[in-house]
Amino acid sequence: MEFTEIFPIWDKLTPAQQDKISESIIHRSVKKGVMIHGGSADCAGLFLVKSGQLRAYILSDEGREISLYRLFSMDLCLFSASCIMRSIQFEIQIEAEKDTEFWVIPSEVYKQIMEESAAAANYTNEVIASRFSEVMWLMEQILWKSMDKRIAAFLTEETDLEGSSQLRITHETIANHLGTHREVVTRMLRYFQSEGMVNLSRGKIEVIHKKKLEALLDD
Amino acid sequence: MEFTEIFPIWDKLTPAQQDKISESIIHRSVKKGVMIHGGSADCAGLFLVKSGQLRAYILSDEGREISLYRLFSMDLCLFSASCIMRSIQFEIQIEAEKDTEFWVIPSEVYKQIMEESAAAANYTNEVIASRFSEVMWLMEQILWKSMDKRIAAFLTEETDLEGSSQLRITHETIANHLGTHREVVTRMLRYFQSEGMVNLSRGKIEVIHKKKLEALLDD
Repeated sequence: MEFTEIFPIWDKLTPAQQDKISESIIHRSVKKGVMIHGGSADCAGLFLVKSGQLRAYILSDEGREISLYRLFSMDLCLFSASCIMRSIQFEIQIEAEKDTEFWVIPSEVYKQIMEESAAAANYTNEVIASRFSEVMWLMEQILWKSMDKRIAAFLTEETDLEGSSQLRITHETIANHLGTHREVVTRMLRYFQSEGMVNLSRGKIEVIHKKKLEALLDD
Repeated sequence: MEFTEIFPIWDKLTPAQQDKISESIIHRSVKKGVMIHGGSADCAGLFLVKSGQLRAYILSDEGREISLYRLFSMDLCLFSASCIMRSIQFEIQIEAEKDTEFWVIPSEVYKQIMEESAAAANYTNEVIASRFSEVMWLMEQILWKSMDKRIAAFLTEETDLEGSSQLRITHETIANHLGTHREVVTRMLRYFQSEGMVNLSRGKIEVIHKKKLEALLDD
């Protein structure tokens, strides 16, 4: 898969703009677990994901985390280039959740193209609006949904993403995804186990009754 | 104050685009308390605030509220025209918090201009990014800050907005701003009263020691 095939507005750019991007993009491969962006100080560029999976999250002063959204093949990460817009006044962290390949478009190259091309600016709009929608969904979850539903939703989503009912994940990691404490997660998982929905073992959670977990979501 | 003076990109539009907007905008005046937008079904148009104050908030299925941000003179409200972008997948409500005058730019007019003008599309980008930043700030408050700080921050902000230490506001209304229950607010306000920071009376809160309230925020 080439950059030109997955960058959605490639055909709407002028030849000069296309050349500018082709000459400046960098291809990167990172291993699972690598932190590829940390905060706004670092304005490395936009990431276009070729394959793999990235996680965007925020961090509290005390080191607590909450996952905001994930990026998959063909997704564009703008907030690793927050200097392209002065109104982006928050910091997010990006880590590779799987081995990931992506292209980096340098911030100043993208910024200049966005300023002259309505197509690029409108595409950027859609990307921001789409991340905004994910964050609004998350905020509604945090505000109005109880933790049992949020953990059940996380587990069913994870089994779908991994294509397996066996999840190699710690309670601490789940807590970091959901912005809560490990103890809260452990208590809830034990309850799920007592209800026959999951089996817990060291560093592993097996979903044994997915329908029952999903039923929690509809309450 | 005319529309052309406060619409930030007026001078960057072509004469044809300017005419299109001039011919289609509608001037509206609403009284304090009027709901001017409710959910995505209604795609009335973009609101450019001339004077007054609007509040954007979300609503849970059970009718709980939380304020997302406020709009003042010269601010543009995009989400009352969420149909202009397909990636806006959330619903917000807008009410007038003070008597407010604003212009409505019809959605289809704005959408067309945004598609052809990089300046309009980039301005829209900045507006979305700016609201996104406010929502991210709010999410961090909800996740990492305790309710005493959030109520103290709300009271000090309100006294600044009103230019008075006497706030005519119910505990229910504060709870709706902060996405919590009335009882939580009442308990905290009584604590603030016992600490000599506020005086409570029917439908009224007087901030009597603002410095002490503000000191809470720095902890």
